Amino acid sequence: MASGGGVEEVSNKQVILKDYVSGFPKESDMYLNTSGTIKLKVPEGSNAIIVKNLYLSCDPYMRPRMRQPIPGNESYVEPFKPGSPIAGYGVSKVLDSGHPNFKKGDLVWGLTGWEEYSLITTTERLFKIHHTDVPLSYYTGLLGMPGMTAYAGFYEVCSPKKGEHVFISAASGAVGQLVGQFAKLLGCYVVGSAGSKEKVDLLKNKFGFNEAFNYKEEPDLHAALKRYFPEGIDIYFENVGGKMLDAVLLNMRVHGRIAVCGMISQYNLDHPEGVHNLMAVVGKRVRIEGFMVFEYYHLYPKFLELVLPHIKEGKIIYVEDVAEGLESAPAALIGLFTGRNVGKQVVVVARE
Amino acid sequence: MASGGGVEEVSNKQVILKDYVSGFPKESDMYLNTSGTIKLKVPEGSNAIIVKNLYLSCDPYMRPRMRQPIPGNESYVEPFKPGSPIAGYGVSKVLDSGHPNFKKGDLVWGLTGWEEYSLITTTERLFKIHHTDVPLSYYTGLLGMPGMTAYAGFYEVCSPKKGEHVFISAASGAVGQLVGQFAKLLGCYVVGSAGSKEKVDLLKNKFGFNEAFNYKEEPDLHAALKRYFPEGIDIYFENVGGKMLDAVLLNMRVHGRIAVCGMISQYNLDHPEGVHNLMAVVGKRVRIEGFMVFEYYHLYPKFLELVLPHIKEGKIIYVEDVAEGLESAPAALIGLFTGRNVGKQVVVVARE
Repeated sequence: MASGGGVEEVSNKQVILKDYVSGFPKESDMYLNTSGTIKLKVPEGSNAIIVKNLYLSCDPYMRPRMRQPIPGNESYVEPFKPGSPIAGYGVSKVLDSGHPNFKKGDLVWGLTGWEEYSLITTTERLFKIHHTDVPLSYYTGLLGMPGMTAYAGFYEVCSPKKGEHVFISAASGAVGQLVGQFAKLLGCYVVGSAGSKEKVDLLKNKFGFNEAFNYKEEPDLHAALKRYFPEGIDIYFENVGGKMLDAVLLNMRVHGRIAVCGMISQYNLDHPEGVHNLMAVVGKRVRIEGFMVFEYYHLYPKFLELVLPHIKEGKIIYVEDVAEGLESAPAALIGLFTGRNVGKQVVVVARE
Repeated sequence: MASGGGVEEVSNKQVILKDYVSGFPKESDMYLNTSGTIKLKVPEGSNAIIVKNLYLSCDPYMRPRMRQPIPGNESYVEPFKPGSPIAGYGVSKVLDSGHPNFKKGDLVWGLTGWEEYSLITTTERLFKIHHTDVPLSYYTGLLGMPGMTAYAGFYEVCSPKKGEHVFISAASGAVGQLVGQFAKLLGCYVVGSAGSKEKVDLLKNKFGFNEAFNYKEEPDLHAALKRYFPEGIDIYFENVGGKMLDAVLLNMRVHGRIAVCGMISQYNLDHPEGVHNLMAVVGKRVRIEGFMVFEYYHLYPKFLELVLPHIKEGKIIYVEDVAEGLESAPAALIGLFTGRNVGKQVVVVARE
């Protein structure tokens, strides 16, 4: 960074969204702009910060942000701006700061841009990273937004009790793998579904789920759930929606709870599938509850207190799927919707 | 009743379910059996009671009871037995009792048969009627199961707060009319939907709803709800399901609650309609909760304490649609599914 009158201007590669996307997104909906530059100094009098982006997070909720907003039927997240860089969670290093809470050299996680360097003007939702004796990339997953999503969704929304029967869809993903481990730590019976043999093996052999199955190989999801939950499901951690939700509804136990974290199977459809078995919520007195992680960020210190020792003792493990380089980011994001990733999808922009 | 050795045997007309019903039920799915008789004395040593049925209740949940049970997808209520009388809620007078809690002359409400006289062996869920300075038929509606459903659903499930915006479907029905009045008493803004001009007038002019509309005249339910709830719905009391639920989901406010009491629009369909907008529960962090009234019957004394004074002061009113005679019961029940009834559908079997 220039300390004198001249300010260093450096090249700043960016991943740009070309236009709003309908249907299934493609790599070509984004492009790498290599001609941009950025000054690595915050403007005089601003309380923004300049960061170098290290790790970027690919998350399912980013798909709705690529959609053209429909008046009266807005998505739950602000849409991306065509022609601008993709925005998302990441781990970054502060290079310059006009904000009293941040100083050069700080590591942070939170919302940033898909580019090498970002000027961040909204710093309210950035978290400073104090624990660096774990992989820094964990702050895009296990110790970041997905981790907090698992924590809030399971402990705060599902009201779990020891011994309960828990089902998790998209169970090897960034959120699911952690929900399953939380449930096991509490003494629950835990079953997960995923989309490949490799993922199913991971669930059973690495994350310690009691059972796991490949939903693509189950012609009858209702029968599959009946097999693993002959007495029914107390808690369903919902990540996928559609047919899986319909099958789950028929297998819920009395007073069961469904925490709706997302519905990845529906994000690429212009018209979401119908769910037909909602009547089951009456007979079984089921509670379905949607939640968004940002309402629980005040619990982040409590979450770290719980999770950090478990990580260090090897009682909680985390699997990441790491893509190298900003140029690999579009493919990594698209892969999330085909289920190509195994574990949390991270993109490494720089290692320090 | 015979007091000596001989026991009086009297004629006992019954409404019999012919066979399981699929699709839309018809009057001819039931028939009046006039050849039966009954002894008006409980068997020696039994703790059953013999009652004379005065008022019978026609309720939407009776439709699922007419359906053939599908293994693995059981309805939430026990099916009726083809060849046997329809069962349902009613107000009855005890003629003979083998049970210490009941004596001849007692008035009770609870589950009985669609017949002139019934032998009731399961008396656990019968309520003794202590307040007879209100119309006895009210114990099939306002002061019976539907009243308790409104009370439990609104106060216990919806967590209502003064000033909140409340929408009720099937709002002029046995449950809806009372939910609306509870919400008004609490200081909420209340809108109801119903299926005719007469019902809409009732909602606005008799029950004091702020607004009401005829859903059959709204080509776009989403637009209709937007009109009445420009800032969104805090509480939806769900009685109908299907398209209405889909439109409501798009109009919920952040942290809105949907109490699912029933889904009458779906009961006659072999394949329930799909609900497409469930993703909205994430963005708006909505809670959907099914409930069944029997879990709240312990609150019945508290409910009476609240409601009886309001009835006497004219602050809660109740509209009934009264059919005369057991022979009119099949048509009355079928009318519930076409919306022919205006207010709570009651059948008078005998007035005392």
